[in-house]
Amino acid sequence: MSDHDSIAGIRTATVVGGGVIGASWAALFLARGLSVTVSDPQPGIEEAVRGHIAQAAPALGALGLDTSDLTARLAFVPDLADAVRAADLVQENGPERLEVKHRMWRVIEENAPAGALFATSTSGIPATEIATALKDPGRLVVGHPFNPPHLVPLVEVVPGERTSPETTERARAFYEALGKRPQVLRKEVPGFVANRLQSAIFRECVYLVSEGVVTMRELDDIVTSSLGQRWAVAGPFRSFHLGGGEGGLPHFMSHLGAGMERRWADMAEEQVAFDERTRRLLTEQVEEFGGSVADLAAERDRRQIAVMRALGEGYDG
Amino acid sequence: MSDHDSIAGIRTATVVGGGVIGASWAALFLARGLSVTVSDPQPGIEEAVRGHIAQAAPALGALGLDTSDLTARLAFVPDLADAVRAADLVQENGPERLEVKHRMWRVIEENAPAGALFATSTSGIPATEIATALKDPGRLVVGHPFNPPHLVPLVEVVPGERTSPETTERARAFYEALGKRPQVLRKEVPGFVANRLQSAIFRECVYLVSEGVVTMRELDDIVTSSLGQRWAVAGPFRSFHLGGGEGGLPHFMSHLGAGMERRWADMAEEQVAFDERTRRLLTEQVEEFGGSVADLAAERDRRQIAVMRALGEGYDG
Repeated sequence: MSDHDSIAGIRTATVVGGGVIGASWAALFLARGLSVTVSDPQPGIEEAVRGHIAQAAPALGALGLDTSDLTARLAFVPDLADAVRAADLVQENGPERLEVKHRMWRVIEENAPAGALFATSTSGIPATEIATALKDPGRLVVGHPFNPPHLVPLVEVVPGERTSPETTERARAFYEALGKRPQVLRKEVPGFVANRLQSAIFRECVYLVSEGVVTMRELDDIVTSSLGQRWAVAGPFRSFHLGGGEGGLPHFMSHLGAGMERRWADMAEEQVAFDERTRRLLTEQVEEFGGSVADLAAERDRRQIAVMRALGEGYDG
Repeated sequence: MSDHDSIAGIRTATVVGGGVIGASWAALFLARGLSVTVSDPQPGIEEAVRGHIAQAAPALGALGLDTSDLTARLAFVPDLADAVRAADLVQENGPERLEVKHRMWRVIEENAPAGALFATSTSGIPATEIATALKDPGRLVVGHPFNPPHLVPLVEVVPGERTSPETTERARAFYEALGKRPQVLRKEVPGFVANRLQSAIFRECVYLVSEGVVTMRELDDIVTSSLGQRWAVAGPFRSFHLGGGEGGLPHFMSHLGAGMERRWADMAEEQVAFDERTRRLLTEQVEEFGGSVADLAAERDRRQIAVMRALGEGYDG
């Protein structure tokens, strides 16, 4: 029917849920030449999604995509059954409540073409649990982006217990052809990988600030000027492998492993919680960041795009 | 006496200990125009240090410094007393053993000029403990670089209980004028900040690999394509502040704080150690990185320099 681009066999995508994640996916899909239908019954959603897409356009342009006619193939179809009838891909970004997802996916399966690929952006609910609503649970896989999807390369592809290998591979190939960096996890774990790591480091961040060792802003400056720059180019394992001299990671484990285990034991003793005192302290220190959330986010994205370009990342590679 | 450059009043630096950290400091000091005396009684140290300096030169050049005549003002004086007699700054990079540091610092204080600034690169021993060897403990401060010091911007400046405010400020101003990003900590804590954060995230990294959720290389790829790129430009607090919509960090804490606390509780139950099985698994997976440690490190540094240049970082800013 359509003569426009296809990405790994996908021409027509239905984005279910028009919040920030859904709208960001929509912007990227459109910039990649797909036809996109956004389905969300909320009043005012069309204006909100168009606003998000307009906001995402400069970043997509800076990353190498043509954004001159971004919304030419964008449609809004509030009714979910109608919205998925011609979909090659359904990317669901609904509320993170199992019963809502079950209801949505039943409608999607009932009405989407038999060959459509089913992906959920969930950050918290395993595909195994969502797929119990499906007649064919083999069709559904988690495609969890790191926010915002149009900018951050990672997509965690997490098959459930009954996801078919074909579905997983199709999703991986699609995200890769889209220009993302998909990573297929070998096991379903709550929070997947990136958010677990983020939580792990954040506990110690909150501890150090609540103890008065540094302020939030000072801690952030420490990270951007050391670990962040390293981890943008070499992850934690590679960093230790390359920090251990010629002996690499095995040498590191032999010589510094015991010290790190002691540090872990000490950290386990730390009391860290978002209690009243901690919330008040962190809220007060937000002042230090200066500027509105929107301005700071724009500045962050501008700088991240510069980093990505320096590393040869983007959608024109 | 000297007509060459001074950095915040420092013209002549003595680098005590010619290992990788000491040699990296020496390379940066030299490229900044200081006279540098390296003091290390180890046989063969001069050749090793000259080798490290030659290795560091391309990075220093790429970061904006003139490295054409890097070793013209480099001297080797094995005897510590002799080595510090003309020093404006002593940057000590000795073994991480308290009694060795005590012995060194007694000799340094006895023989260095009364106005010399005393800094230790220690990553583990608080200035308070090292300074008990000094007649004037107010003169000593921790200036802990993130390895390698000629490349990574961060220097953690950590005063001990008796470090004078003047010493702390002098050290901070010197590192800043040198082109680093010094951060003065408000409290002495074991491991300071960057290494504690690194340990915290690494525990979960080891857990996820030992559970078979991902391999080391896959985990590293997840980090470089998500958290790393973010944290190179906005630290963990700012990232959550900007990820919470207009409500910022307070909204994040209200809405996602409880979920993160549950994740912390779950993580605390994880058994993680560098036991035989874990060491074997991680050692096997080192193969995945491909290439020698030296080649991989050169590649990482090249990419980090590209990131730093994209962010306007370097020694010519």
